[in-house]
Amino acid sequence: MIAPIGDRVLIRRKVDESKSGIILEEDSMRKLPVGTVLALGDGKAVQESSLSINDQVHFNAMAGEEVEDGDERLILVKLNDVLGRIV
Amino acid sequence: MIAPIGDRVLIRRKVDESKSGIILEEDSMRKLPVGTVLALGDGKAVQESSLSINDQVHFNAMAGEEVEDGDERLILVKLNDVLGRIV
Amino acid sequence: MIAPIGDRVLIRRKVDESKSGIILEEDSMRKLPVGTVLALGDGKAVQESSLSINDQVHFNAMAGEEVEDGDERLILVKLNDVLGRIV
Amino acid sequence: MIAPIGDRVLIRRKVDESKSGIILEEDSMRKLPVGTVLALGDGKAVQESSLSINDQVHFNAMAGEEVEDGDERLILVKLNDVLGRIV
Amino acid sequence: MIAPIGDRVLIRRKVDESKSGIILEEDSMRKLPVGTVLALGDGKAVQESSLSINDQVHFNAMAGEEVEDGDERLILVKLNDVLGRIV
Amino acid sequence: MIAPIGDRVLIRRKVDESKSGIILEEDSMRKLPVGTVLALGDGKAVQESSLSINDQVHFNAMAGEEVEDGDERLILVKLNDVLGRIV
Amino acid sequence: MIAPIGDRVLIRRKVDESKSGIILEEDSMRKLPVGTVLALGDGKAVQESSLSINDQVHFNAMAGEEVEDGDERLILVKLNDVLGRIV
Repeated sequence: MIAPIGDRVLIRRKVDESKSGIILEEDSMRKLPVGTVLALGDGKAVQESSLSINDQVHFNAMAGEEVEDGDERLILVKLNDVLGRIV
Repeated sequence: MIAPIGDRVLIRRKVDESKSGIILEEDSMRKLPVGTVLALGDGKAVQESSLSINDQVHFNAMAGEEVEDGDERLILVKLNDVLGRIV
Repeated sequence: MIAPIGDRVLIRRKVDESKSGIILEEDSMRKLPVGTVLALGDGKAVQESSLSINDQVHFNAMAGEEVEDGDERLILVKLNDVLGRIV
Repeated sequence: MIAPIGDRVLIRRKVDESKSGIILEEDSMRKLPVGTVLALGDGKAVQESSLSINDQVHFNAMAGEEVEDGDERLILVKLNDVLGRIV
Repeated sequence: MIAPIGDRVLIRRKVDESKSGIILEEDSMRKLPVGTVLALGDGKAVQESSLSINDQVHFNAMAGEEVEDGDERLILVKLNDVLGRIV
Repeated sequence: MIAPIGDRVLIRRKVDESKSGIILEEDSMRKLPVGTVLALGDGKAVQESSLSINDQVHFNAMAGEEVEDGDERLILVKLNDVLGRIV
Repeated sequence: MIAPIGDRVLIRRKVDESKSGIILEEDSMRKLPVGTVLALGDGKAVQESSLSINDQVHFNAMAGEEVEDGDERLILVKLNDVLGRIV
C-alpha cells in the first residue's frame, strides 16, 4: 500500500468500459477520468478537505504520477487536480 | 450528482438560443457564457463568496472542465472564473 | 443587472465623442478608457477600496470581459485594472 | 483631477529641458525620468510609504499609464515603479 | 554522512533489479523510482511531515541532486518531490 | 540627494582602478561591483536589514537603475541585489 | 572579510583534488561542489537554519556569485542553494 505525502491523494483509476466496446477517441479524450480515492496524504489541505477514502472522484489524469502497488498501477494526484466527487 | 472539490463551482451551461436561429459566430465568441450554479465546492473562498445554488452566472468557459453527470454534461469552474451573477 | 463576483467592478464604458468627429487612431489607442462604476464585487479588496458606485474611472479595457445586460454591453474589470477615479 | 486607485501614484512628468537644447538621444534614454507627485492612491503600501504630495521623484516611465486630466497628460505609476525621491 | 538543509530529504535509491535481468526501457522510464529515507532536513515542512528515517518512498528522480557520501551516491530531494511512502 | 523608495538602497559605485591600468575584460565582467551605501529606502526589509550608510557592499550592477544626482551618477539597487558587506 | 546580506551564505569552495590528478570531465560536472561556510547572512531563514560557520556543505555552484576577498575568490550562495551538510 502507498501512503501519499503532502497534499496528494492516491487514486485507483476506473477502467473505462464503454457499452458498445468501441471508444470514440476524440470524445473520450475530453472526458475527465474517474477513480476511487484509496488514501489521503498527510498535508494540511488534504486533511481539511471534504475528501474521504472510497470517494468516487473526477481528476486531471495528466497531472498525476503512476506508481506500482503490487500488481496494479495507481495514481498519485495533487489535491488541486481532484475536481469533484460523485455523490 | 457531482460535489465540487476546493474553490470550484458546478455549473449547467445555458444553451444559447438566439432568436433568429442564426448564430453570428464572431459575435457569439465574444459573449461570455451563462449558466446555473448547481453546487458549490468545499473551499474556503467559495464558502465565503456571495454565490448561492441556482444563481445565474457569467463565467469563463475556457477555464472549466466538462464532467458527465448522468445524461448531461456539466462544467466544473474555478471560483476565480465566475465573473458575475445575474440579479 | 449583474453583480460582480470577487474583486471585480462592473463598468459602463463612456462612448468616446471627440469634438471634431474625427478619431486620430494612433492617439486614441493610447488614451485610457473612461467609464462609470455600476456595481462593486463581493471581494475583500473591492470592499476595502475607496471605489463607490457612480464613480467615473480610468481602467484598462484590455483586461475586462464584456457582458450583455439587457440591451447594453457592460465590462467586468478586476479591481487591479481600475487605475484612477476622476474627481 | 484624478485620484489613483490602489498602490498607485499620480505623477506630472517634468519636461526635460537640456541646457543646450540638443538632446543626445542615447544618453537621455538611460536617464530615469523625474516628476512631481500630484496624488497618492488608497492602497495600503502607498499610505504607509514615505511619499508625499509635491515630492519630486524618479520613476520608471515604461511602467506607467498616461491619463488625460483636462489639458495635460499625467502618468499613473505603481508605487513599486517609484524608485527615489529628490531631497 | 550528509544532513539535508531546508525542506530536503536524503534518499538511497533502490537499485532496480528486474526479475528477468532485462530492462524494458520505455516502461522503466515511466516507473517512479523507489528509495530509502536516510536523513530528514531541518526545514519546517519536513519536520512536520509524516516522513521518518528508513521509510521506503516513491520520488521524482529528475528533481533530485546527486551527492557522494563515501563510496556511494545518494540523492537530495525536496520534500515536494517525495510523492508517497510504501507501507 | 536622493532618498530611495521601498526596499531600495542608493549606492555610489566604486571606480575600478586596476593596478596596472590594464583591464582584462573577461575577468572584470565576472567581478561583482563594489560601492558605498549612501542612503537606505523606507521599506520594511531595508529598515530591518543589517545595512548601514557608508557600508561598502557588493551588488548586482545589472539590476540597478542609474540616477543623476547633481554631477554624479548613482545607482538605485533593490535590497535583494545587495549581496554582501565588506567588513 | 565579507558579511552576506539577507538569506545568503559565504562559502570557500574546496579545490577538487582527484587522487590520480586526472579529472573525468563528464563525471565531475555531475558532482555537487563542496565548500566551507565562512559567514552567515542576516536573513531570518539563515538565522533559523541549522547551518553554522565551518560547516562543510554541498551547494549549487551555478547559483552563486563570486566575490573577491583579498587574495581569494569566495562564493555568495543563497540559503536555498545549500543542499546538505557533511557530518
